Amino acid sequence: MEDHEITIALDAMGGDDAPAVTVQGAAEATLESPLKVLLIGDEKAIQKELKKHKYHADQIEIIHTSHQISMGENPKIAMNQKPDASIVLATRKVSEGHAHALVSAGSTGAVILSAAKNIPRILGVHKAALAASYPTHNIQKRQDIFSLLLDVGANIHNSHHDLVHFAFMGATYAREIKKIENPSVGLLNIGAEEYKGGEKLARTHGILKTLPDINFIGNIEGNQIMQGLADVVVTEGLTGNIALKVMEGMASSVKHLGKQAFRQNVLWKMGLIMLSGGIRKLKDVTDYQEYGGAPIFGFDKMIIKCHGRSTAKAIKNALKLAAKSVRDDITGQISRYITNYEYHHADYDVEV
Amino acid sequence: MEDHEITIALDAMGGDDAPAVTVQGAAEATLESPLKVLLIGDEKAIQKELKKHKYHADQIEIIHTSHQISMGENPKIAMNQKPDASIVLATRKVSEGHAHALVSAGSTGAVILSAAKNIPRILGVHKAALAASYPTHNIQKRQDIFSLLLDVGANIHNSHHDLVHFAFMGATYAREIKKIENPSVGLLNIGAEEYKGGEKLARTHGILKTLPDINFIGNIEGNQIMQGLADVVVTEGLTGNIALKVMEGMASSVKHLGKQAFRQNVLWKMGLIMLSGGIRKLKDVTDYQEYGGAPIFGFDKMIIKCHGRSTAKAIKNALKLAAKSVRDDITGQISRYITNYEYHHADYDVEV
Repeated sequence: MEDHEITIALDAMGGDDAPAVTVQGAAEATLESPLKVLLIGDEKAIQKELKKHKYHADQIEIIHTSHQISMGENPKIAMNQKPDASIVLATRKVSEGHAHALVSAGSTGAVILSAAKNIPRILGVHKAALAASYPTHNIQKRQDIFSLLLDVGANIHNSHHDLVHFAFMGATYAREIKKIENPSVGLLNIGAEEYKGGEKLARTHGILKTLPDINFIGNIEGNQIMQGLADVVVTEGLTGNIALKVMEGMASSVKHLGKQAFRQNVLWKMGLIMLSGGIRKLKDVTDYQEYGGAPIFGFDKMIIKCHGRSTAKAIKNALKLAAKSVRDDITGQISRYITNYEYHHADYDVEV
Repeated sequence: MEDHEITIALDAMGGDDAPAVTVQGAAEATLESPLKVLLIGDEKAIQKELKKHKYHADQIEIIHTSHQISMGENPKIAMNQKPDASIVLATRKVSEGHAHALVSAGSTGAVILSAAKNIPRILGVHKAALAASYPTHNIQKRQDIFSLLLDVGANIHNSHHDLVHFAFMGATYAREIKKIENPSVGLLNIGAEEYKGGEKLARTHGILKTLPDINFIGNIEGNQIMQGLADVVVTEGLTGNIALKVMEGMASSVKHLGKQAFRQNVLWKMGLIMLSGGIRKLKDVTDYQEYGGAPIFGFDKMIIKCHGRSTAKAIKNALKLAAKSVRDDITGQISRYITNYEYHHADYDVEV
């Protein structure tokens, strides 16, 4: 599919600075790409923002709703109370075929629950996965200094089959979007040996190492995450969420701790001051402000979740990323891998 | 109990630089404290090292064994093959009453398995817990800039009762050893709300908030770990191990990533060079080289696990820490809290 045929549904009301940054991001995207954007949200507010920017009017369509789910709300309760909230309507537009993919900077819970309610999962997939791209120090000189960690919180716990599915999702994305030829996949665990981490992780390890379509490099320990040994790191939602948030928290904490612990040392203090811009930059990177957003895998339409504090540039990049995912048929490819895997590994009780 | 009545069993062969640093640490401990040390390991090698140092001979006793378990060995297999390995013999000496506590810088797995085989658990305790002390930036100005995280890898998964036990273990240690009056306890989780993180964590949260002996401050997210909101952070072994190792890995990775990402910026580069000593220091701190070691809770005798790369100073501090734990009856206090908790919360099927 060509870019001018691709339509992306954008939750115009999602995110801390919506609809200002969402509308600006959409406007800028139309100038850089032939993709079409459905802006879903309060029409008056959207029109008001649109007037501030240049854009290609034939690539923008507004779908009005006066309801929205804010960051602080319990997503389950809010979805029941507001069946036409912008994020819910956006997922419906996608499932009804009016758009090919979805972008939202709204509450992660609301995005995933709305998608779960309205967009079919890929056949064989039981659990969606939220992926995060994070910077590594890439000691193996991989093509990309970033690695992809999934799941980082769409779930709490997952089965070993889910974890294998996550490996296919992450590897497909790394290959198609990041253009990494044979992306390496690691399993987040407590030690290097195959038997480590309990039965579930040991079983996952045992399967991954046999799969010809996965370049499995073994277990990755917590202290190796940032080294960037693998292009894709697979883990359950609880562990992935904690690992990602520890990384995010560390970037700012190192600065504070340094100030406190080494207060007396002038050299260290000067270093910290000089570095503080760099540390802030590092934090931005883990917030993927610049990198368009985090993919949510598992549904038969691609979803890009942007950070709540996304800038217009991040929204623009997320829209282009979503279009690229559609063009490269990411969900179709994931589907084919998982169908093939399930055929060989699921327990059929069919006698031929 | 007074210090001159206290005997600590030291696995003289455990650690990367054993028996040199273990013997030196023991020798130095006898000069600073009246405690007695059982040095368990190869007598000739120990005697050779002892000759290099000053020490109080009446406070040192050598118990000979020619076997030891090295870091690379599978601890389960090694324990079966070498029933008289220094760590196994050390745990037996403790359980037989020849020593009041155990210190080892050997393989964590071997220490925990030897203890599990030879030292009774505290009544009611199902799982031992390995605790790690890590530096925080202490945004709440707690008394201590360090927080205690447990379990960090004695287990993979734990029950909600185990997690409550861990809270008692950590809080008792913080109160007695760190002299924190009413230590705050947090539960590592994926979000702030009580219902987050799945049934087990929600149940743990529900119990902890009702316990009068625990100053429970709620869930702690990954990015809050380093902020140091709580004196004690409770978690299952898998999540705790990953969180701790991500922190350890981050300290060195920040430096490397910074070098790579910001290569062009001279100011940042200079800052990194000036800081690199500080970052190394930070890494050392998380390695607890200076802080004596990490307590293993759950057995009716106190165990201090030192880092494999421990210095003589770390061993000395660990011996003194172990003696302090005996003097303050840490295991007895933990036992009383847990007995009381189990009485009120366990499901008895007794009809009176």
